[in-house]
Amino acid sequence: MAPKYSNLDLVDQVDGFPNAATHPVAFAERTADHARFMYLSHTVGLIIPRVLEALQDVALSGDWWEITPGVVRLLGDTVEERTKNMDETTRRWRKAKRFEVLSGWRDERYTIYAPKGAPCFYMERCATPLFGVVAYGSHMTVYIPATPTTPLRIWVPRRAAGKATYPGMLDNTVAGGMGDGASPWECIIKEAAEEASLEGSYVRAHAKAVGFVSYFYVRHADAGGEAGLLQPEVEYCYDMIVKEPHEGGPVPKPFDGEVDEHILMDVDEVIENLGAGKFKPNCSAVLLDFFIRHGVLTAENEPDYLEIYSRLHRRLEFPTR
Amino acid sequence: MAPKYSNLDLVDQVDGFPNAATHPVAFAERTADHARFMYLSHTVGLIIPRVLEALQDVALSGDWWEITPGVVRLLGDTVEERTKNMDETTRRWRKAKRFEVLSGWRDERYTIYAPKGAPCFYMERCATPLFGVVAYGSHMTVYIPATPTTPLRIWVPRRAAGKATYPGMLDNTVAGGMGDGASPWECIIKEAAEEASLEGSYVRAHAKAVGFVSYFYVRHADAGGEAGLLQPEVEYCYDMIVKEPHEGGPVPKPFDGEVDEHILMDVDEVIENLGAGKFKPNCSAVLLDFFIRHGVLTAENEPDYLEIYSRLHRRLEFPTR
Repeated sequence: MAPKYSNLDLVDQVDGFPNAATHPVAFAERTADHARFMYLSHTVGLIIPRVLEALQDVALSGDWWEITPGVVRLLGDTVEERTKNMDETTRRWRKAKRFEVLSGWRDERYTIYAPKGAPCFYMERCATPLFGVVAYGSHMTVYIPATPTTPLRIWVPRRAAGKATYPGMLDNTVAGGMGDGASPWECIIKEAAEEASLEGSYVRAHAKAVGFVSYFYVRHADAGGEAGLLQPEVEYCYDMIVKEPHEGGPVPKPFDGEVDEHILMDVDEVIENLGAGKFKPNCSAVLLDFFIRHGVLTAENEPDYLEIYSRLHRRLEFPTR
Repeated sequence: MAPKYSNLDLVDQVDGFPNAATHPVAFAERTADHARFMYLSHTVGLIIPRVLEALQDVALSGDWWEITPGVVRLLGDTVEERTKNMDETTRRWRKAKRFEVLSGWRDERYTIYAPKGAPCFYMERCATPLFGVVAYGSHMTVYIPATPTTPLRIWVPRRAAGKATYPGMLDNTVAGGMGDGASPWECIIKEAAEEASLEGSYVRAHAKAVGFVSYFYVRHADAGGEAGLLQPEVEYCYDMIVKEPHEGGPVPKPFDGEVDEHILMDVDEVIENLGAGKFKPNCSAVLLDFFIRHGVLTAENEPDYLEIYSRLHRRLEFPTR
């Protein structure tokens, strides 16, 4: 049976915003009514019309924003001042129930970067897609390598049916957003314990940094909140080889209720589930990257090889960590 | 001792052309006097002023080119006609010694692609940088993994002192350009035999496809021919694990005279040679990609991690295979 989605379709789902270098006309058309979120001479985010409108209302009531045609600036001379002005803005919207996405408020601070990796300001995690600023996370693929008699197998969690975002979908073995101050490596150690009950000392000894995926995500409704919000994203990737459970290999187990179960899935079953759209979109991206790095997808068996892999390492249009 | 070149410097050396998405002003300034090489509504290459001038001379003497302000088109309704017109042009220049780069004529046909991976026309390999069209190759890193007592080691060839391009520089274990009709995999098998005396059956059983690097190279003088020619490039990457020579692992040996010797180099020595600028530029790119995929370079020890890895997977502005 032909898959519902090709691998390139899966990339389109996670990298849905036109690229100015390869599709200048589509980019110009798409951004014509967007405002650039600028800091000094750098664009740190992109603001869609309905958020711009809400910002114009806010700008009337406080000295927090400077809005000129096509350009929005967060006022404040220091990181602290800018952080405070952003905080006032997003809390006001939250109280007024202006944006559904803010109902996911977590009191978790994300860092928005100025060029050269310096923090520009901090803001509430769930509000970042209102401003089209870059978000970060760490994802890990825990797997048992192929042997002459058994295929490559991957530990795949199923998200809890009651989770607010992407309920019931398949996920990467370990994955989580990266809050203020954490490093990608510390983030993956923490998430491995929280999401999969994998011991810190074990993960430190066996996990391996293997790059990242980056893309410009246009949020779907099942991300939680309004559809169409902008979320450029970097997910640091880790691989971890484990042994068979009967040989003493660790077995990921749900810990914090966000995951229903962990399934040890043959590579063919993972591919089938990808094609059926069963994986959370950015987890598909991490798996496609894994399959390319491990020779499962090759230039010979995947017609869109070049486009898939280069789009999954998109050079984001904004300053990053 | 601080290295002469940072890893980001090495990326700059191989990806020297401004990116329209992240540096629109630099891109616009740089391309203001360039002509787009168009096929239907697609840009397949980029032509610098001195080549444009030579094309204008050619256009006077044959019905091969249509030149309008900022846009150049190769005439011909079929792949064969376009190939013939390109061939007439480049042979004429070669005969007139118009471009030094054409003294490296190899009678080796490269494929230039239209969108959707269909061939647009074929042309002589050494002439491709005159037209800023995408070139392809395959590179393989042959290595002995780290053990608790020995570091990761890589087989590194030194190019022959008499080679026309990058004489005496260090290289990837196996590397070669991909001519018309070859697949990346067939290319690496062939080059492994020709450059390193590695047997086809062994390579087929042990080499693993691991992605590619892509970048927009502005040629240095030591590439052979004029400096400043444009060469967007895709290098398919392969890894191959081998055993120690004393355990029966294959030892790469010079075969066709293009390589002087193969050195089994500790990872630290490879890093030192990279920093000293001893590697051929696109071989540095392949090694940086290898180091990121293998956790040698990480988000924690490499400040330019994100920029390095995304630029090494540049989404080229042209149709590709």
